[in-house]
Parts: sequence; structure tokens; C-alpha cells
Amino acid sequence: MPHIALEEHLPGITGLLEYRKDSAAPIRELTQFLLRGPNTLTTGERELIATVVSNGNQCRFCTAAHAATADALLGESETSACVRTDIESAALSEKTKALLQIAKLGQQGGKAVTTAAVERARHAGASDVEIHDTVLIAALFCLYNRYVDGLATVAPASPEFYAKLAGRLVQNGYNRLPQGYDHLRRQQ
Amino acid sequence: MPHIALEEHLPGITGLLEYRKDSAAPIRELTQFLLRGPNTLTTGERELIATVVSNGNQCRFCTAAHAATADALLGESETSACVRTDIESAALSEKTKALLQIAKLGQQGGKAVTTAAVERARHAGASDVEIHDTVLIAALFCLYNRYVDGLATVAPASPEFYAKLAGRLVQNGYNRLPQGYDHLRRQQ
Repeated sequence: MPHIALEEHLPGITGLLEYRKDSAAPIRELTQFLLRGPNTLTTGERELIATVVSNGNQCRFCTAAHAATADALLGESETSACVRTDIESAALSEKTKALLQIAKLGQQGGKAVTTAAVERARHAGASDVEIHDTVLIAALFCLYNRYVDGLATVAPASPEFYAKLAGRLVQNGYNRLPQGYDHLRRQQ
Repeated sequence: MPHIALEEHLPGITGLLEYRKDSAAPIRELTQFLLRGPNTLTTGERELIATVVSNGNQCRFCTAAHAATADALLGESETSACVRTDIESAALSEKTKALLQIAKLGQQGGKAVTTAAVERARHAGASDVEIHDTVLIAALFCLYNRYVDGLATVAPASPEFYAKLAGRLVQNGYNRLPQGYDHLRRQQ
């Protein structure tokens, strides 16, 4: 049971974003920019960063949600499963693996991101902005994971829930649906 | 030396917020709402949450910046020093101590926030919104601390730097100074 009174039909982050809309607006905006904005990293790569960090923080809701979203974007589920256990074994470029390792270190703590890890990414062709965005996306999911679990929100068990949520995140991104689209929200 | 090329005269978070203004805008907005917006928690209490979390994450820049800001708001420096070593020894209300303990647990991880810690705060009079905001502020500073240290930004050694920064954060909050106020920025 959540630590505070949240709407029962809105599990995980969804109830929190409805609970306090003034804080939700900039959180949604930041996430939309980092995960869906113009970027040389693909949306799939960015969802893998979210998956690796959420998995490291053992946040069930966020791990399932972002793995399902990465799967929908990549068109397969092997990669998101791989990066959760062993980044190096995934069928990804050296640059993406190096960036995911930076994200994994960032999940542990800011100081855990070593110069060697950054140099590996740079050597594989990562730009300053890509390194920056990887660290900031990792930091953002450290926020999300603590927000979601720190208030003991509910994580549905059914994979169908996350597949549906992923469909929404692929189609609409992280912005709140504008007023007048309530019929869409109800369907989700 | 930072992992990416940042303006040398802007240490810690300040250079990062200038580096990528599109992500900086919602980060500033979220911080302004949570730390300076209308709230039953005082601005001093909210800066103490930031201090406790940054200290737990061993982020030198953020700890010094928010301790100095708390000091400026509280008019004394004993409380911010106390909460960094032993929250219970600080001259604070039972409610504030209970909320700071929640923040400290949230710094460790979302799942570390126990029902007992939340019940202590509630028993001392904390509302759902206060508990929510405490967890979210703690989560936000887990983002900041990882952002600042994950990119190896520079933390000035001089206390004067942080006192000046604190003066700015007390006077102007976390919003970016609007264009036309460059003379103010230069003074800071």
C-alpha cells in the first residue's frame, strides 16, 4: 500500500504525476526532452539507459515499464533482457555499451563514473552531449526510482499492463495528454 | 577536470545548467516549485532536506551550496552542521526530524523508506503532501548529486563562493535570471 493516498487505478509513477501536477509538469517536460527530443542517441538506446538504471535500483515498476518501451521501439525483447544482466553480451555497438556502462556507474553514484568509463565511450565515438545526456538520463531515473519506491507505489504484476503503458509512451511520449483527449486516457 | 567541456568560470551545477539549456529549464522549474513554491514546509526545512541528501551522496558542491543556503535562511549555521552528522541532535521539531530521516532513507534508495519512518512523521503531524514533497526533494537531489559528480564538475574550496551562491539562491531562487538582468548575473 502506498505511503500516501493515491488513486488506486493509477499504479507506479502514474498516480504520483496526477497527485501533484505542479511538480509533474517539469518532470514530464524534462523526460520528454531527454528521452524523446532531438538526439543522436536513438529513443531505443535512451530507453535502455532508463532500463539499466531502474534495474540497478531494483525499481520493479520502472524497469518493467522502460524495458517494455525499449522492446516496442527496438522490435525485439532480447536486448533489454541482456542489458539487465550483462551489458557486454547485448547485440549493441561498442559506443552504446560504453554509454550503458556509464549509466550503470551513475546509478551507483556520481563519483562512480570513472574517467576510464568516459574515455571508453569517447574512444568509441561518443560526443560530449551524448555523455552528458547519458549521465543526466541516469540521474533522472535515480529520481524516478526513488520517487516511485520511496512512496511505496504499487507495481502491477501483469506484463500486459506494461505493454499497454509502453504503447502509450511510444505513441504519445511523456507529455500529459492535453484536455479533450480523456477518451484516450481512459482506453489506456 | 570535468568529463565534458564546460565553461571554466561556472563550477558545479552552474556550468551544467548553461551547457544544456533545454534540460536546464524544467530542472530549474521543478526545483523552484519544490524548494521555493507555496508549502507548509519552510524554505529552510527544504534546504535542510537538500543538504542531508547531498551529504549522504558525498556531493561536495551540493552539500556546501545547500548548507550555506539553509544557513542564510535560518540565520545560523548550527542546524545544517548538526543534520549532516546526527539529525536527532538538531534543534528541530519532531516533525522536521522525522521528515529529514525519510529524506536520508530516500537517499539510500526508494525501498529504504520504511512504513515506520513514514508513520513517525505522520504521528508528528506531517501531511501527505509534506511526506510526498520530502521524498520528491530527496529524489531530486539524488538527480543533482549524480549529475554534478557524474560529470566530474569542479567544487570550489572557498566558503565565500558558496555564501555568495546561497545569497543568490535566497534572493532569486532557482529560476534563471531573465534576459536584461545580466548585470546581476555578473555581480554574482
